[in-house]
Amino acid sequence: MTSVPKADPVRLARAYLVRVAEPPAPRLVELVEQEGPIRAAELVRRGAVTGDGVRETAARRHLDLASQDVAAAGAVGARLIIPEDEDWPGWQLLALRLAGSRGIQGMAEPLALWVRGAAALSEVVDRSVSVVGARSASGYGEQVAGEFGYGLAARQVTVVSGAAYGIDGSAHRGALGAGGLTVAVLGSGIDVGYPAGHAGLLRAIAEQGLVISEHPPGTPPARHRFLVRNRLIAALGAGAVVVEAGRRSGAHNTASTARVLGRTVMAVPGPVTSAMSVGCHQLLRSGEAIAVTTVDEVVETIGRVGADLAPRQRSPARATDGLDRVALQVHEALSTRAEHSDEWTAVQSGVPLERVRALLCELELLGLAQRGESGWRRAAGPSARTSPGRCGGS
Amino acid sequence: MTSVPKADPVRLARAYLVRVAEPPAPRLVELVEQEGPIRAAELVRRGAVTGDGVRETAARRHLDLASQDVAAAGAVGARLIIPEDEDWPGWQLLALRLAGSRGIQGMAEPLALWVRGAAALSEVVDRSVSVVGARSASGYGEQVAGEFGYGLAARQVTVVSGAAYGIDGSAHRGALGAGGLTVAVLGSGIDVGYPAGHAGLLRAIAEQGLVISEHPPGTPPARHRFLVRNRLIAALGAGAVVVEAGRRSGAHNTASTARVLGRTVMAVPGPVTSAMSVGCHQLLRSGEAIAVTTVDEVVETIGRVGADLAPRQRSPARATDGLDRVALQVHEALSTRAEHSDEWTAVQSGVPLERVRALLCELELLGLAQRGESGWRRAAGPSARTSPGRCGGS
Repeated sequence: MTSVPKADPVRLARAYLVRVAEPPAPRLVELVEQEGPIRAAELVRRGAVTGDGVRETAARRHLDLASQDVAAAGAVGARLIIPEDEDWPGWQLLALRLAGSRGIQGMAEPLALWVRGAAALSEVVDRSVSVVGARSASGYGEQVAGEFGYGLAARQVTVVSGAAYGIDGSAHRGALGAGGLTVAVLGSGIDVGYPAGHAGLLRAIAEQGLVISEHPPGTPPARHRFLVRNRLIAALGAGAVVVEAGRRSGAHNTASTARVLGRTVMAVPGPVTSAMSVGCHQLLRSGEAIAVTTVDEVVETIGRVGADLAPRQRSPARATDGLDRVALQVHEALSTRAEHSDEWTAVQSGVPLERVRALLCELELLGLAQRGESGWRRAAGPSARTSPGRCGGS
Repeated sequence: MTSVPKADPVRLARAYLVRVAEPPAPRLVELVEQEGPIRAAELVRRGAVTGDGVRETAARRHLDLASQDVAAAGAVGARLIIPEDEDWPGWQLLALRLAGSRGIQGMAEPLALWVRGAAALSEVVDRSVSVVGARSASGYGEQVAGEFGYGLAARQVTVVSGAAYGIDGSAHRGALGAGGLTVAVLGSGIDVGYPAGHAGLLRAIAEQGLVISEHPPGTPPARHRFLVRNRLIAALGAGAVVVEAGRRSGAHNTASTARVLGRTVMAVPGPVTSAMSVGCHQLLRSGEAIAVTTVDEVVETIGRVGADLAPRQRSPARATDGLDRVALQVHEALSTRAEHSDEWTAVQSGVPLERVRALLCELELLGLAQRGESGWRRAAGPSARTSPGRCGGS
């Protein structure tokens, strides 16, 4: 035990406990809360746990691999962080406890987290967004995920995702490409390197950001673990962006969890002809998510009110923008090719003659009408000349 | 005058009035309401109109082309329908009057409508949706507009649009392709054939549905007329679907008008990378429109409550769908390749041994687990055999 630095008794107790119970383990979390980790570990080891706690701990209580787990994690550069540590993201995970205490199934906090990477988790997720979506993403989805990942990281927003193929991978890679922070939350042991094709990506994330898991080293991936893992992805982001999701998807599950945790859920629209956008459109139609189309809109949505407003999407200006309806009628009655009289223009536009005469002068001053030998013609826009039109003079 | 059938004095009075004022003409509509069309026409002709009415009628009051207009319209198979007619869509247009009386600019009812086509307008728009969008539509937008046009018409919903290039044309063509009803509302005279490339389309619409305009024959298209025309498109549909719209577009204008008129506004999501979907996404983000992705969703949205519910988009069933979380944990702990003992399965799944044994039997009965020589392995799903598993027997 002395060969492993920082493996203090509290940490070892939690390393034991986090292996004993398949997360989420609300009864065990409660026991640790009441008894402290060291005493709770003793009780579990001795089989002295009663009630519901038995269900969570009976199958594995004889497995005390705490030191081995710390060593195995250390071999891939990972360590165990615990609620007693300063870099524990207590504020973010509090939402899980609150949801659990409202009786929502499966919402317990993790007992500890295995973390690979040098940064302090609590700081990394201080300003963060979860970006999730389908593994079998379309080219469109991967493009958008990559751009969102890049854009968020470039704006100092950490990208939290699940390191899966498809949307997750693109979002992580985008963030790495921007030299920003990204967090991968695994549904397997920190040392398992799953999915296999993302071993290199996981290494890169650990170097620049963090890879985390609440499962002990060596834990194989499993579907129920991904669902359980999704609650951490949802909790660690201030909001969750679903980039692409099929009709039935893990991303949908993360979105629901995010809503339960009080996080803002955002969905990226896509072609209605794409099966991979069906889940996003369901979220939009049901009102569970709000539509986001740019990184600025995401930042605005999760940002503090007024602090991160997305730049208003500007409309291109037209020379005729300032005109009221009647002036517009006169302007459009004019021809660009032929000259016409005031009277003709009045009939064409349906505007009384007096008013037409006044408006033609206004339009001339704006460079929108031009007087010629035999009447008026339409002009394209503001002319460069600064001399007044003839209306004001002779 | 006797050569033109149905050109009764009331109709001729309205034919005169509808040319005299560029629509919308709220003061003139009010005058006709108070004095009746024949007396109102006389007052206008004599220049006896006072107040704001002068502004609407002064420029053209000397133009009495009523009989010529009826004849010109007749030459392209069009007729004038008036509020005194049975096929006047009074119910739909009432929204314009109500909006006008709330002081909303430009919301007056039309004084009459030029109509090309045999059907009764009031019946045609009894169950209808406006489908609008960009002229410079993308291939995606045109595909969706065509499919929506087809699908709506096939469900006996009339497609109202503006006969423009792009979304409008695709929506009309889709409806025609389904052998259904469609209405084109023009921003020019009924006989002008604008846009030129849609002359054939307009003929086809007139044969199977209706082409309508409130502008007198010969009126050239103009931008302000399209905006004014949009209020009719908005009014004649029970709801408005925006298929594609740029940042600044006529479709956006129609959507705003539809909202003002109390119509449901729907927007079709598209790729966030497409400039032609920016307007739709703005409508969705601002909450001005609800997202629609299928014809069924449109019909449900405009349909009477409960009568036109879109079929629930079904999720594909999985063999493991009925399992609770703990059973799922046990199922996933099993290997498809190797057999394992109950005890091994308990540790892997984190589920107590007793519970594992019970669950393995349940899984076997469901065909999800299979007992072999040296333990259990995972099975794919329900087996065909009906004999009970070994758990219940020996």
